[in-house]
Amino acid sequence: MAKFFSFFYGAIMLGEIIAIGDELTSGRVLNTTSYFAASHLFAAGHEILAMTTIGDEPELIGRTLQRALQRADFVIVTGGLGPTTDDLTNAAVSSALARPATFYPEIFKKIQTYGKNLPAGQQLSLEKLAWLPAGAHALHTEAKMSGYFLVQDGKPIFFLPGVPQEMKDLLLETVLTRLAVWEGEEVRQVRQRVYRVVGLPESEINRKLAHLEGRDPRVRIGYYPVFPEVHVSLTVTGGTSREAEAAMQKYAAQVAAALGDYCYGFGGDTLEDVVGALLIERGQTVAVAESCTGGLIGHTLTKTAGSSAYFFGGVVAYSDALKERLLGVNREIILRAGAVSAETARAMAEGMRRVTPVDHALAVTGIAGPAGGTEEKPVGTVYFGLASPDKTLTFLCHFSGDRGQVQARACQTALDLLRRHLLGLENGGRTV
Amino acid sequence: MAKFFSFFYGAIMLGEIIAIGDELTSGRVLNTTSYFAASHLFAAGHEILAMTTIGDEPELIGRTLQRALQRADFVIVTGGLGPTTDDLTNAAVSSALARPATFYPEIFKKIQTYGKNLPAGQQLSLEKLAWLPAGAHALHTEAKMSGYFLVQDGKPIFFLPGVPQEMKDLLLETVLTRLAVWEGEEVRQVRQRVYRVVGLPESEINRKLAHLEGRDPRVRIGYYPVFPEVHVSLTVTGGTSREAEAAMQKYAAQVAAALGDYCYGFGGDTLEDVVGALLIERGQTVAVAESCTGGLIGHTLTKTAGSSAYFFGGVVAYSDALKERLLGVNREIILRAGAVSAETARAMAEGMRRVTPVDHALAVTGIAGPAGGTEEKPVGTVYFGLASPDKTLTFLCHFSGDRGQVQARACQTALDLLRRHLLGLENGGRTV
Repeated sequence: MAKFFSFFYGAIMLGEIIAIGDELTSGRVLNTTSYFAASHLFAAGHEILAMTTIGDEPELIGRTLQRALQRADFVIVTGGLGPTTDDLTNAAVSSALARPATFYPEIFKKIQTYGKNLPAGQQLSLEKLAWLPAGAHALHTEAKMSGYFLVQDGKPIFFLPGVPQEMKDLLLETVLTRLAVWEGEEVRQVRQRVYRVVGLPESEINRKLAHLEGRDPRVRIGYYPVFPEVHVSLTVTGGTSREAEAAMQKYAAQVAAALGDYCYGFGGDTLEDVVGALLIERGQTVAVAESCTGGLIGHTLTKTAGSSAYFFGGVVAYSDALKERLLGVNREIILRAGAVSAETARAMAEGMRRVTPVDHALAVTGIAGPAGGTEEKPVGTVYFGLASPDKTLTFLCHFSGDRGQVQARACQTALDLLRRHLLGLENGGRTV
Repeated sequence: MAKFFSFFYGAIMLGEIIAIGDELTSGRVLNTTSYFAASHLFAAGHEILAMTTIGDEPELIGRTLQRALQRADFVIVTGGLGPTTDDLTNAAVSSALARPATFYPEIFKKIQTYGKNLPAGQQLSLEKLAWLPAGAHALHTEAKMSGYFLVQDGKPIFFLPGVPQEMKDLLLETVLTRLAVWEGEEVRQVRQRVYRVVGLPESEINRKLAHLEGRDPRVRIGYYPVFPEVHVSLTVTGGTSREAEAAMQKYAAQVAAALGDYCYGFGGDTLEDVVGALLIERGQTVAVAESCTGGLIGHTLTKTAGSSAYFFGGVVAYSDALKERLLGVNREIILRAGAVSAETARAMAEGMRRVTPVDHALAVTGIAGPAGGTEEKPVGTVYFGLASPDKTLTFLCHFSGDRGQVQARACQTALDLLRRHLLGLENGGRTV
């Protein structure tokens, strides 16, 4: 829960990101560099108007760059700077901005130092890296990576390599700092907080927060379904640091009140991390007995590094035989109430606690579909058991969606039931 | 293995992809949907001119769409179709294309069917989903997902949800086929086959197929890493149906020969489906004993509908206590060889077969990291056990990547070891 607040300071500039490479437009390579740039620029208080991905086509590169210069305060271009023949960014920039290709001997000298161990043919191709559009300034002081910036129409353009690690290093080391000291016209302050919500559909969250929208042009609420969760962002923009701070204080409290205990965390928190932290705080442990989820709850708990401190393991009792054999579920219960029933969920959870000395045992049994549903228990019917030292609770949920979605919702609900139990909260509207 | 061939017929078109969402331009969410669309459109023989990502800003949405219509043959727009107030795509489209928002009662009727169990407030917000720009046609015949297409200036525009799974389903199920039958100017025949490969890195696959590239301009081989697998596409374009067919016959055999038994399936096959089909064919069953994967293998097997026919369940023996208690692993073995060892993997697999009468038991024990590694057994060291009626095999792998990647690779490897065992193949280069 360390990421409660994110603070941003500095001039707010409107930027555009252009990624260049045939490997991107053909879908061979996922573009992670634009995402990386956007997240860090946003965190630094800037706004991104558009992120454009195009192939290695000089004319299109030129047109895209010119349009970006018309509407943005700064531009970041990645890719196409390398030594091979299909790297065409520099030629396109020279032509589009009327900045003739110029040989930079001091850059070439530095490049040669690093390239001296390369075979002769490759050394030759390094020369291409020292030909840049007129007015370019190398970004890396030792020229260990390609990348430069130039100022056009009073706006900075940064050209970065397409290689993700080099691009990221240069962005963090030079671009953000250069932008931070850039003399922008308008200096605003931005604050943002992200709320992670479990157990409410997006439309219901929207309903709870609708009264806060549109009251203040500086305040924006965003809804991001990240199945099976929904994340809510509160963004406050203010003229001064004090104004932004005051507006954030005011609205953050109202958003928190509206979301209540459906908000399990903030920023990059995950539900399994939050449950793990609660168990560690209490010095308690958990095991799982899973039927329809097939191991998903156990796996999700082990996504958290260090989960062995509180997660003992469990049983995937997909067959009735294993429910009996490993969890000691009485066959009478299964025959009488059915494998998918509150009684079986209770017996599975209590059986799991008999097998291993944990504080809490979570059990799930349900019908993930597509087959197996009945009129009385349709696909999506899932029973939960939560056995703790003092008592065993059972819950019933009806989930919509396909097989995978029912499994994912069941897993999330199981973890949320444990979270609520550890916090002493009501069960969040699930039928007991 | 029903999806052995995928056939695409039709014109090669120039497309543009527009992704909409503040969560993308603020770098909160990585845009994987444009990448997914580009890779499948490219594999289907189309070309992507530009991929643009913009925020939920109606004016910018309209301008971006208009520019795309000027220069591309078709446009795909993702995001901003949801029921909440920050979903603005439909309003922007109505305004930019002068197509007034129109209520579609037949869509609303279908949506209501799915929403009938929702509280009144949420049902109301569903109505927004039935208001679309005039001339829109819903893409999903049952209106289970938002998404529609319309034709502007003779060019198809597809509007898809931003939720990755829904977007992907609609793209594969409806967009590709609609584009394939679109009456473009240039009509060529296209055939495509997708090979799903397990146990080889992309560079190694590339090496095996390099001799087939560039020999025929009608033939294109694409490599798509879909972690932890790699998919290979073979696309053949011919002037006539017979030409395309003949070239496909010729190249498909050569690609198959080069990939050998590393190719586990085609088209939409998944490794767990293939393993399940092999077990059903043989009338055999499986159970799992998982340590470092925490339940992932069991869960992956249960992703296949009907898996209860061959998957009995298993034990998540995350703690040594559960390895002893539920699987009967001798404490001496753990003390002598370590919990992460071939001996423990063997004892876990054999213990699982004692617990429940399955034909095969898969066991996994390893170090997923980030902590727990030693010089002798670094992070990524994973032992596998595979106990069958006649013998027990053990394997050792060293995986790279973070905790989640090691878990995913271990799960995939376990399933592949079982696949190879069922097919009587060698173990694919894994150390025994």
